[in-house]
Amino acid sequence: MEEQNLTKRLVVAALEDLLFEAIPVLDHGFIRAVDYMGSDGAIVQAARVSYGRGTRSLNDDEALIRYLVRMRHSTPLEMAEIKLHVKLPIFVARQWMRHRTSVYNELSARYSILDREFYVPDFENICAQSKSNKQGRGPALEEERSNKVIAILKRDAVQCHEHYNEMIEDGVARELARTNLTINTYTQFYWKINLHNLLHFLSLRAEGHAQYEIRAYAEVIMNIVKAWVPIAYQAFLDYRFNAVTLSAEMLRIVRLLVKGERVERDGTSLTNREWCDLMGWLDRTAS
Amino acid sequence: MEEQNLTKRLVVAALEDLLFEAIPVLDHGFIRAVDYMGSDGAIVQAARVSYGRGTRSLNDDEALIRYLVRMRHSTPLEMAEIKLHVKLPIFVARQWMRHRTSVYNELSARYSILDREFYVPDFENICAQSKSNKQGRGPALEEERSNKVIAILKRDAVQCHEHYNEMIEDGVARELARTNLTINTYTQFYWKINLHNLLHFLSLRAEGHAQYEIRAYAEVIMNIVKAWVPIAYQAFLDYRFNAVTLSAEMLRIVRLLVKGERVERDGTSLTNREWCDLMGWLDRTAS
Amino acid sequence: MEEQNLTKRLVVAALEDLLFEAIPVLDHGFIRAVDYMGSDGAIVQAARVSYGRGTRSLNDDEALIRYLVRMRHSTPLEMAEIKLHVKLPIFVARQWMRHRTSVYNELSARYSILDREFYVPDFENICAQSKSNKQGRGPALEEERSNKVIAILKRDAVQCHEHYNEMIEDGVARELARTNLTINTYTQFYWKINLHNLLHFLSLRAEGHAQYEIRAYAEVIMNIVKAWVPIAYQAFLDYRFNAVTLSAEMLRIVRLLVKGERVERDGTSLTNREWCDLMGWLDRTAS
Amino acid sequence: MEEQNLTKRLVVAALEDLLFEAIPVLDHGFIRAVDYMGSDGAIVQAARVSYGRGTRSLNDDEALIRYLVRMRHSTPLEMAEIKLHVKLPIFVARQWMRHRTSVYNELSARYSILDREFYVPDFENICAQSKSNKQGRGPALEEERSNKVIAILKRDAVQCHEHYNEMIEDGVARELARTNLTINTYTQFYWKINLHNLLHFLSLRAEGHAQYEIRAYAEVIMNIVKAWVPIAYQAFLDYRFNAVTLSAEMLRIVRLLVKGERVERDGTSLTNREWCDLMGWLDRTAS
Repeated sequence: MEEQNLTKRLVVAALEDLLFEAIPVLDHGFIRAVDYMGSDGAIVQAARVSYGRGTRSLNDDEALIRYLVRMRHSTPLEMAEIKLHVKLPIFVARQWMRHRTSVYNELSARYSILDREFYVPDFENICAQSKSNKQGRGPALEEERSNKVIAILKRDAVQCHEHYNEMIEDGVARELARTNLTINTYTQFYWKINLHNLLHFLSLRAEGHAQYEIRAYAEVIMNIVKAWVPIAYQAFLDYRFNAVTLSAEMLRIVRLLVKGERVERDGTSLTNREWCDLMGWLDRTAS
Repeated sequence: MEEQNLTKRLVVAALEDLLFEAIPVLDHGFIRAVDYMGSDGAIVQAARVSYGRGTRSLNDDEALIRYLVRMRHSTPLEMAEIKLHVKLPIFVARQWMRHRTSVYNELSARYSILDREFYVPDFENICAQSKSNKQGRGPALEEERSNKVIAILKRDAVQCHEHYNEMIEDGVARELARTNLTINTYTQFYWKINLHNLLHFLSLRAEGHAQYEIRAYAEVIMNIVKAWVPIAYQAFLDYRFNAVTLSAEMLRIVRLLVKGERVERDGTSLTNREWCDLMGWLDRTAS
Repeated sequence: MEEQNLTKRLVVAALEDLLFEAIPVLDHGFIRAVDYMGSDGAIVQAARVSYGRGTRSLNDDEALIRYLVRMRHSTPLEMAEIKLHVKLPIFVARQWMRHRTSVYNELSARYSILDREFYVPDFENICAQSKSNKQGRGPALEEERSNKVIAILKRDAVQCHEHYNEMIEDGVARELARTNLTINTYTQFYWKINLHNLLHFLSLRAEGHAQYEIRAYAEVIMNIVKAWVPIAYQAFLDYRFNAVTLSAEMLRIVRLLVKGERVERDGTSLTNREWCDLMGWLDRTAS
Repeated sequence: MEEQNLTKRLVVAALEDLLFEAIPVLDHGFIRAVDYMGSDGAIVQAARVSYGRGTRSLNDDEALIRYLVRMRHSTPLEMAEIKLHVKLPIFVARQWMRHRTSVYNELSARYSILDREFYVPDFENICAQSKSNKQGRGPALEEERSNKVIAILKRDAVQCHEHYNEMIEDGVARELARTNLTINTYTQFYWKINLHNLLHFLSLRAEGHAQYEIRAYAEVIMNIVKAWVPIAYQAFLDYRFNAVTLSAEMLRIVRLLVKGERVERDGTSLTNREWCDLMGWLDRTAS
């Protein structure tokens, strides 16, 4: 696989360097880029078909890509495509596969026997339920409680997998025996997605509210995207990932603040959460 | 919810009777139709926009729907939509959600605590691995072995759920504690899908090679579709579900057989599987 | 069609009033709502399946919908669906049908003969090419030039349609004769789309940069959406339609301005267009 | 563009030979393959992730691909992707773009000025309306009538384009002036689609009932696919393009015929069209 061939297609040297390398994620997972199509140049090429002579003023490729990302002109970004091989726990795969506009080929436990590999978090990732965020984690647990969690997760996963194996050896149908496995068992899939949809995935899964485990994967993909389409990646950071959306009411408030006026939350229709977000963005303490 | 309101929309009495009724599936699951849009009449209406005056010869609604289904004219069927509330084991949900062209709102175990409900097959559904079908089940196991399987499935699921609860009570983040659950635990989702995509789902999941557990759901949906769009449903049975596709080579063989000629598998390029399929369709013993 | 039936489904009285009414658009076009599924209440219902007990703090339906729209949680909005019958010029249909995640049944000129109806703009909508916006219109032309444009558009469309008719009467295949028609000829389609995708459509087509002709349709749809899902509609206005996105660099600048500092464009990495946008949003004159 | 680079990706020599070559279609159109991802080998690779050890019996790559195509296992075929640059008349683009599961970047006449190029059929393609097929063409017209059609199409297109140019030179907005163009005017787009969806496109557009003009494009694409994925292409021909679907009733009839029984249409529930199709497939004269 590592041999090289000649092609007339656009080639991205920085991504070629990563191809087929399994980048480790979590305790047993990985991400491997296995194929790609297109580049920053291909995005420009597709956009120029649409705009034709009309893009003369955006004759700088970088400016054009940044404009496309900012204005959310999605189709030129859909012209680039990447294929990844991912090994991950089932519960992460379940979140991942909610992204429907992409292609999956997952290992089938009706055909194959799953290995005895399951995810157990590191110490620092065993956390209490967040009090402020109903779907998230709070601070790490103290050592003793963490040890107990780790012990439970390991023992139950091992036991379930042993019984799974026992049933299979006993001749039970694989599709039935596998129902005994825990959702931290590792699975794997090939995943193909276009750049537009991938950036949407990253905006949700590399973000602070995403569950730590899927974020670990998303962060690896961020680096792959950076190697693949560095200009589009930077535009994504500037115009989406590190951007904020001001609602109509937030914009009204910002206008007042810029004019030097004083605004209290009571004088606005923002929710508490919105007010805190806005104050945070503006480096102010929510009051 | 059971109160009735006046509407100018098309109403399907037979489906209204089923609305909001939870139809039991497997040991703890159900399907409830919760909303719908369109009917056999709506399919016809949409098709007539396309064909305009050109459909005069198909002025019979039933003939038009049957023609659409036969010719796989998909868009008029996409004009009808249904919404179901489904409770099902996680491993069934995983197969189900591979159908990407539909909308899901699934219970999130990051927000909610899952009930202690998990799927254990009935005796007659605990089967050996099929020898002929790599992904399927063979004959039911004898009583003793089945008892053992049931005991394992129950004990492991109960134990994993108890530890899950224990961790949650201990303050562990829900998104973490749930990784200890087995994939036979029940989840639920709202599912919205158009008729075209639903028929595709049924053609794969109500079919003999589908895993028994998802087929149990698909069969309930078959009845819902029958109540909802009886003409399209019958056309689906006739032109797809109970139809067969003859490859070019199969067609050549059928032509010979119809002429009364004798054909041996050796004289064809069919695979063994194809030859058996063809002989089965023609009520012949594969030789 | 105007008779009413009893249904157990959610009914939206304000939208029922509009059902089947053809609302005129442009000189010969119209939009008619012909069916719908769901309501503000259905969005809430679907969201609560996901969040379960976790949504207790958002027990107010309006707050929940506004949160969903703000956070771009798309699937509950995908649970609502609407069907429109639209009559429109071909060149508008071409823009419209770039929206791929929806269902179309368009009148086929291979089956039917198109009526002699074509779009000619009103006086005030015959404009010069914009100098600032490469894809847009500038000021209205003076009367004489407008009259000339109207005369050309009418004469050519009439002539092309007459020749089209002549060819058809002469026995030429419809699919061939229709190639002589101008792209301002009217066509029509049934269109079914879910609320999430519809709001995306509106954010692009009801917006100031959209071509006037498609905007005229989008504005009618805005009113239909307002009647159908008033809470989601208001949230859409507040969090998307009248919202602005600050890039990372814009946010940095706003922070400085709020602190009372002075910022010149030269000290930023904004493009000219971005600087003007930001100054406009802040009610400042771009300098 | 014609220079070559080294890549670790799968390379298909036969398709590389075609890359960037404009293959002429109709009088002014073309198709150019501009990029691709995957190959027969990539389909196999993706499928083996799903089946894992379970595919040992299909250890022959060709047998596996043929099995996938026959059983309509779509996701491995979705793993291969191709990008084409197409120049085509607007009315052909309108049919083409009904295929929604692919990506388009079309030349925008709001930005650019369209060239004076429009489609006029060759003599042999100027046909009468079909009497049997409401959407199709019958026999070619005699010379005199064909000459008249050609004269009309040319004159009207030229005149409309001249007025279009005149308006643009007069300062009228491009988005407005272009509404005067005829739908046989040429446009162009970049088109990216995965192999699964492309085969679906070809099954509809390379087929005898498709309008001649789009079929001309589809036939060129058939050859591109043959060069790209020869095994999948042959499987497509055998199992789909040259295959037939027997409805339940057709299958019943075939069974009788194979047993040597005599069947009259009256004794069946087939429509006239179905009966003729079946007799045609079996090389019998419909009686």
